[in-house]
Amino acid sequence: MTQIPQAAFIHEVDQLKAIKRQLRLPHDEERQENSAEHSWHVALSALMLADYAEQSVDISRVITMILIHDLVEIDAGDMFAFAGAADHAEQELKELAAAKRIFGLLPAEQGQHYLKLWLEFEAAETNDARFAKAMDRVLPVFQNMQNQGGSWARHKVSQQQILDRNTELQTCAPKLWDYVNEQTSLAVAKGWLKS
Amino acid sequence: MTQIPQAAFIHEVDQLKAIKRQLRLPHDEERQENSAEHSWHVALSALMLADYAEQSVDISRVITMILIHDLVEIDAGDMFAFAGAADHAEQELKELAAAKRIFGLLPAEQGQHYLKLWLEFEAAETNDARFAKAMDRVLPVFQNMQNQGGSWARHKVSQQQILDRNTELQTCAPKLWDYVNEQTSLAVAKGWLKS
Ligand SMILES: [Ca+2]
Repeated sequence: MTQIPQAAFIHEVDQLKAIKRQLRLPHDEERQENSAEHSWHVALSALMLADYAEQSVDISRVITMILIHDLVEIDAGDMFAFAGAADHAEQELKELAAAKRIFGLLPAEQGQHYLKLWLEFEAAETNDARFAKAMDRVLPVFQNMQNQGGSWARHKVSQQQILDRNTELQTCAPKLWDYVNEQTSLAVAKGWLKS
Repeated sequence: MTQIPQAAFIHEVDQLKAIKRQLRLPHDEERQENSAEHSWHVALSALMLADYAEQSVDISRVITMILIHDLVEIDAGDMFAFAGAADHAEQELKELAAAKRIFGLLPAEQGQHYLKLWLEFEAAETNDARFAKAMDRVLPVFQNMQNQGGSWARHKVSQQQILDRNTELQTCAPKLWDYVNEQTSLAVAKGWLKS
């Protein structure tokens, strides 16, 4: 029998489709978005917004990071962006263990390659990782602005929280930073974000 | 106000999350898979299976094609792989119109670029497009084999239909072709596919 050693990984990652996020989908009966379709949307948006990157980025590496960035949620779950600091520290440990387990399903060399790439994304120090992470964080701004504040309104999020979360854009993609500033001010005016 | 001309496209593609496929998800209460999370899964699988490509492929172009390949379903809907030939011809016309409308939401040059890439995927003549399309078609084999035949059993699909649908693998990725042959024979033995 022909063995495809990647089959276990391909099967395992199917579970990301069951991980629910706080954001709800206006086009699909306000059901909660899952992390698999989110990853697709971030990857596609990053492709379309690549020219806004201030530093030179390898968009192929950026997309790859985005495609794998949420896999750890299969074990660790999705944490709402504005949860407390203690929760975030515990989440980081869970996610590292998850990354080792999930990429460990791949042939050794391939698994090491993707684990390293995931760690690079998490550290957010290289241009590619910073841009990838910025894309993950800016997409909900586009989504919530088209959905009357969406998850912001429900969770009483403030404009400052959104700006803090997107602060990398200042150096990563300054035009998108201006956009986020203006859009979140508009959201405050509309009562979708706290001032 | 800062304008981001890609915002309309980023918003529009959110609708792909509402397009339901025949395949059901064992990890999420057997709900129907949607075309956005499917696109993510195909892209990630293609990354992991890139080394099986017999011809040289630019995996970055392959991934990009995969990320956009189903967008036309926003207007045209998903068609089950084993629908009749007349249905497929009508679907092709609808999809072309959809591609022009949806990529037309982007700035002109960028829209043209992605329309061309989508047409390349559809034509399936270049190595990149053939591999991308083969990945789209082989993923349900992995998924259904892990879910007791999944959509095959429900729709009384035959092994020959699956082999015909995956025939490009013979030249594109021969080891995966062997795998599909063996796995579908196993599916026949289990009663998941008609012989
Ligand atoms: Ca994310």
